[in-house]
Amino acid sequence: MRALVSVSDKTGVVDFARGLRSLGWEVIATGGTMKLLRESGVEVVNISDVTGFPEICDGRVKTLHPKVHGGLLARRDDPEHLKALKENGIGFIDLVCVNLYPFRQTIAKPGVKMEDAIENIDIGGPSMLRSAAKNWADVTVVCDPADYGQVLSEIRAGGNTEKTTRLKLSAKAYTHTAEYDAMIATYMRAQAGLDEKLFLEFDLVQPLRYGENPHQSAKFYREGSRTPYSLAFARQLNGKELSYNNIQDANAALCIVREFDEPFCVGLKHMNPCGAATGRDVAEAWTKAYEADKVSIFGGIVATNREVTREAAELMKPIFLEIVMAPKFSDEALEVLRTKKNLRLLEVDMTRGEEARKQYVSVNGGLLVQDLDAETRRVEPSMCVTKVRPAEAQMKDLNFGWRIVKHVKSNAIVVVRDGRTLGVGAGQMNRIGSAEIALKQAHAAGFTEGLVLASDGFFPFDDCVALAAEYGVTAIVQPGGSVRDEDSIRKADEKGIAMCFTGERHFKH
Amino acid sequence: MRALVSVSDKTGVVDFARGLRSLGWEVIATGGTMKLLRESGVEVVNISDVTGFPEICDGRVKTLHPKVHGGLLARRDDPEHLKALKENGIGFIDLVCVNLYPFRQTIAKPGVKMEDAIENIDIGGPSMLRSAAKNWADVTVVCDPADYGQVLSEIRAGGNTEKTTRLKLSAKAYTHTAEYDAMIATYMRAQAGLDEKLFLEFDLVQPLRYGENPHQSAKFYREGSRTPYSLAFARQLNGKELSYNNIQDANAALCIVREFDEPFCVGLKHMNPCGAATGRDVAEAWTKAYEADKVSIFGGIVATNREVTREAAELMKPIFLEIVMAPKFSDEALEVLRTKKNLRLLEVDMTRGEEARKQYVSVNGGLLVQDLDAETRRVEPSMCVTKVRPAEAQMKDLNFGWRIVKHVKSNAIVVVRDGRTLGVGAGQMNRIGSAEIALKQAHAAGFTEGLVLASDGFFPFDDCVALAAEYGVTAIVQPGGSVRDEDSIRKADEKGIAMCFTGERHFKH
Repeated sequence: MRALVSVSDKTGVVDFARGLRSLGWEVIATGGTMKLLRESGVEVVNISDVTGFPEICDGRVKTLHPKVHGGLLARRDDPEHLKALKENGIGFIDLVCVNLYPFRQTIAKPGVKMEDAIENIDIGGPSMLRSAAKNWADVTVVCDPADYGQVLSEIRAGGNTEKTTRLKLSAKAYTHTAEYDAMIATYMRAQAGLDEKLFLEFDLVQPLRYGENPHQSAKFYREGSRTPYSLAFARQLNGKELSYNNIQDANAALCIVREFDEPFCVGLKHMNPCGAATGRDVAEAWTKAYEADKVSIFGGIVATNREVTREAAELMKPIFLEIVMAPKFSDEALEVLRTKKNLRLLEVDMTRGEEARKQYVSVNGGLLVQDLDAETRRVEPSMCVTKVRPAEAQMKDLNFGWRIVKHVKSNAIVVVRDGRTLGVGAGQMNRIGSAEIALKQAHAAGFTEGLVLASDGFFPFDDCVALAAEYGVTAIVQPGGSVRDEDSIRKADEKGIAMCFTGERHFKH
Repeated sequence: MRALVSVSDKTGVVDFARGLRSLGWEVIATGGTMKLLRESGVEVVNISDVTGFPEICDGRVKTLHPKVHGGLLARRDDPEHLKALKENGIGFIDLVCVNLYPFRQTIAKPGVKMEDAIENIDIGGPSMLRSAAKNWADVTVVCDPADYGQVLSEIRAGGNTEKTTRLKLSAKAYTHTAEYDAMIATYMRAQAGLDEKLFLEFDLVQPLRYGENPHQSAKFYREGSRTPYSLAFARQLNGKELSYNNIQDANAALCIVREFDEPFCVGLKHMNPCGAATGRDVAEAWTKAYEADKVSIFGGIVATNREVTREAAELMKPIFLEIVMAPKFSDEALEVLRTKKNLRLLEVDMTRGEEARKQYVSVNGGLLVQDLDAETRRVEPSMCVTKVRPAEAQMKDLNFGWRIVKHVKSNAIVVVRDGRTLGVGAGQMNRIGSAEIALKQAHAAGFTEGLVLASDGFFPFDDCVALAAEYGVTAIVQPGGSVRDEDSIRKADEKGIAMCFTGERHFKH
């Protein structure tokens, strides 16, 4: 049996080649791979000795030869193919171990020249991968060092790899070449000034029972690289499978949690937060969030950014919830919550750094792509536009409210005090409508003074400020930017309300 | 100069090769292409005469040879490369004309065997495309018959193609191989039982000024094939560029228009229809839709499924609208509406047949894919669950309401009469809340009897029926499926209301 080894990433290749040799395989190698293997004491045949052709053009042409591709592509069960091989002095190649020049890394270098990028487009490698993958019935194709172990052990056990393994490796090889050329195409199109193409690639997480409605079929996919604050990479510890609507709602909850570093908890229903609070610990944050709206949370989703403790679990247990998400659950908390068989418990990675950056939503025949509305400006005293200045405690609540209101469907108004929501006004056609809902809710809960109000868009008139004053609001945060900002500022000063303009709106539809 | 021609799709290839010959080029060809060209009287060189190697293994190996790839890959400005070519008797190949075996068509055939699919994986073709595309500085790569004309005329004019053209063709070739391998990878992964991958590819329509908010950058892409009811393929006849939020809203309007074959018009604001109506013609449909809610339409979007006439245009002109969409505008209508410089006028293809089928929406690190909620059941008398039966006119309105309510944000209630909306209740936390909004709106407009009500989800209690009766509703359509359906049915019969159950809900979030 013969293997052809030609790798750019040398990880594990010496042991792999040595393993093949020890099983009696002949190993053919090219350029740098050959050098490394020989230096490591692995006996290899030079590719040029196989082809009878030198490596020419700086290695651009070394494996593109019938003695290689005939040896890869010939059907072992076809007498005509075998005859042709014999007549032309071509021997079988039974395994190809190839990975490609690092095009991605090359173009990621700052100031990379086009010549360098071009030089790093692998030609021989993809050809070998594709030939071997086409003839997977007889040929093993390895493009990932992670597969060396399995391949060796199957050969050790049975003289060759198993057929099912070869089929899998074939599919993997075409996946690799597809990704590789998508990368090159994107780069070359940019160089050529051609219309941009967007190549996206996702892995199936699971087919869903159905979509938004039972007659719509649906699937859930994930991106190639692990992303924090992501359901696609979450670990489910209890409960039924997530539904399509669950995933949308739970994702909205995770986007809110991402805003906070201090212990925080949010309850969410139909894409809108119904209660959110910070606290000394998760138990206190949950209690405050729950008490913000004990009705809407029924059948809702809870997310927190701290390990769920036994105490917090005991407090959550009596409430009917669909999902609880946290970076971790203590063993005791799990024991408590697992008594509810249907309750979905999800451990979600909440480390900072590699968060999702883009948002996709399709329209008929098209796709809208935008940056996620991920960053939130810190509300600072310097943003105050009124003569009345916000006190320090108010600054805290202004920041709290501002980080919540951006996740409420527009037009959005949130009323808060002491690091918790007291009223959430969502999705109304006009801003005053949302303000009324939020303020009335706070009043109904018995909170009539020292309130802080946050608005995701500017006030078109001073009516929201006037209404807020009636309900005991003493500080407001909003983007500003209306032609009638002066009216709102005047009204605020008149009513003794401090008001900050962030200069950035956060519509969410 | 030498060209290598090896095509699966023979469109235009004879004229192209003949053109090259007439300009003094040598043409090398393979197998079927060679046969066709010779039969057509075009003088060609057999690839085997170039490589000195026969076509072996049923044509699996014919061009994978250093005499081909050396001739493609050698840098014309590198003395070492030139020396190697000379020493090995390799001549330049200056142009490659290749398109690939029809893998997509093969696997689309019903009952296709895996062997046939595999046999249709092209190996030599992509290798030549990729080699030529890498060396675009000197080599022209043509993978699309649509480019034959330009290539020939540039060679005719200047002896060779222009460098910028070669760069574009290179980018196009890598795009082609990327798509091709994505298709193969998808097929092979399914065969291998590997986790499914989703490869998506979109073309840029335009970068947008910004996304949902000014600090979010955004772009608009379209799918590869033309889709009706799509903004991505619409023709803008007037007005400013579409914004991100425009596109989302306008798409929602097109989804509603798609429900109707008779003359129809909808006004839409913030993703919800504010007025919708059928009529004898577009002018009547617009008038009825406008009169349904003269306030909310301010700054809204209008879509109709008929050519906009002068009469309709005159009626729309006085109203402040952001967008008007139609399959066509008459010249007179255009003249009328173009007097409003900012009004966006869009001609949208509304032919039936190839509508979008899938919907994508991203969550952090993942993608939800579902079938579009495209089909709508016809409401039939057989769906009636009450002793009271709907009259014929009511059946019409039940069907009208049912097709509108599915496009209203849940919980959704629509009140209609005589083929027009009179009340739209959207996005409330509970169904009775949405019913109240819709019914009160109809009342305020002076409509107090003979109303028809549609609900996107079932009634959990009989309170919606009771409320509907108070407001003069005489027929209801809803999915049914609540454990308390019997209560609602009893109440309807008691109040003389006919009620139909469609058995299918239409939530939209």
